[in-house]
Amino acid sequence: MSSFIQTLNDAWQRTNSLLCVGLDPEPTKFPGALANRPDAIFEFCRTIVDATAPYASSFKPQIAYFAAHRAEDQLEQLIAHIHAHHPGLPVILDAKRGDIGSTAEQYAREAFDRYRADAVTVNPYMGFDSIQPYLEHAGKGVIVLCRTSNAGGSDLQFLETGGRPLYQVVAQLAAEKWNASGELGLVVGATFPKEIEVVRGMVGDMPLLIPGIGAQGGDVEATVRAGRTAANTGMLINSSRAIIYAGKGDDFADAAARAARETRDRINQYR
Amino acid sequence: MSSFIQTLNDAWQRTNSLLCVGLDPEPTKFPGALANRPDAIFEFCRTIVDATAPYASSFKPQIAYFAAHRAEDQLEQLIAHIHAHHPGLPVILDAKRGDIGSTAEQYAREAFDRYRADAVTVNPYMGFDSIQPYLEHAGKGVIVLCRTSNAGGSDLQFLETGGRPLYQVVAQLAAEKWNASGELGLVVGATFPKEIEVVRGMVGDMPLLIPGIGAQGGDVEATVRAGRTAANTGMLINSSRAIIYAGKGDDFADAAARAARETRDRINQYR
Repeated sequence: MSSFIQTLNDAWQRTNSLLCVGLDPEPTKFPGALANRPDAIFEFCRTIVDATAPYASSFKPQIAYFAAHRAEDQLEQLIAHIHAHHPGLPVILDAKRGDIGSTAEQYAREAFDRYRADAVTVNPYMGFDSIQPYLEHAGKGVIVLCRTSNAGGSDLQFLETGGRPLYQVVAQLAAEKWNASGELGLVVGATFPKEIEVVRGMVGDMPLLIPGIGAQGGDVEATVRAGRTAANTGMLINSSRAIIYAGKGDDFADAAARAARETRDRINQYR
Repeated sequence: MSSFIQTLNDAWQRTNSLLCVGLDPEPTKFPGALANRPDAIFEFCRTIVDATAPYASSFKPQIAYFAAHRAEDQLEQLIAHIHAHHPGLPVILDAKRGDIGSTAEQYAREAFDRYRADAVTVNPYMGFDSIQPYLEHAGKGVIVLCRTSNAGGSDLQFLETGGRPLYQVVAQLAAEKWNASGELGLVVGATFPKEIEVVRGMVGDMPLLIPGIGAQGGDVEATVRAGRTAANTGMLINSSRAIIYAGKGDDFADAAARAARETRDRINQYR
């Protein structure tokens, strides 16, 4: 049986890349040639995936962008395409779900049975019994929000509790109590490299999904130095908009490939 | 333009009910007559809605149960049916979304433009900029998780910060900083009536969505006494499984109506 962590480790080694390409499709930003296709969202993402796969070690579709456009079927198609044409590159469904156990079971079915994602992002606010149902899907990854990349993340995550900020409590729970499956990861934003360093010190080799290096302005060098493991991996460094909208015209695939290659290289420069 | 809060206040007065019927459809629990229908999820929920509407002041479909079964179209149909056949009863989409602003905009479109919900539940872990995009949909309600009904809720929500538990910080932020639109509500579980009382003391007449009186075992009397406002309303007291699965046979609609009426009456007994 395949395991998310094993697949991820293999992908990091094989591709020599820590880049996770985020797929946030917005039809208003698509090049004209796609505009009138009924499957424009799938076609745009598929083209981006095929162009950037040589430079990436994972993909992260953000489900909100599909749901807002009634395009769940295109998300299914897209993930099936990645598995079929780029085997070994794990797919993280960015959904940030969080609900009581009985409902979490349904969300886990959505992520793993329906969409066939290798991992899903989840929100820790409702505690461990809201996360456990995902862990029962053997070999599937669960990536818990810890220190998010947005400014508002500080509203709660930076509150002091027991002498340290809340996000560190989440990191400790994840490292010491919640990771019985061994398939857990954490989200820590590239906009907060000091916090990446603290979290890395608390969680051993646990994978960190790190958004925020592209449009959100995070520092690549500081991120890599703060987040790498002894094996010089351990990070899914995500860029979405800066890659997928690197070009606006019909050369968007070439522009995305170039941006992905440059981002991979910029990350590797500091490893 | 309609406002969630105004619609809700009108519904409480007109129906003399604080009951919110939760719609968590699980096909394995449906009566045999529905089993082979391709639109079984819609048909089950529509039947429940029509049977319980005389005793309810709102409905709360839980999106996970639709998403796990690729039944988003049936969720759209269901909400359209409620608006068309039971006008004035607000629909709360229970989605518990939470993401950075640009993604939250997409989730807000999903909830309000696509599904035409009157309100949506959201998670506060990512802070105010993850909630603001929903508030920009004028007249739409946003119900923020505060003290959830599950046991694991205590893992984070009960941590002390600045001399009080985290859920109280969320209540205070909601009351004092986040409610510029006047359309905010909070989720506080019926399994924690003392916390309902504390939150009510902090947030004035803000509506409280209170799950947990049915299958989860919350105390109706304690809930009502803790949560009512001066106008003797202020609560969306939710019951899902105890109503919709009250009967297992082809009389499920009658059984649900009976359970809804009894729940409404039990609530009103303590108002």
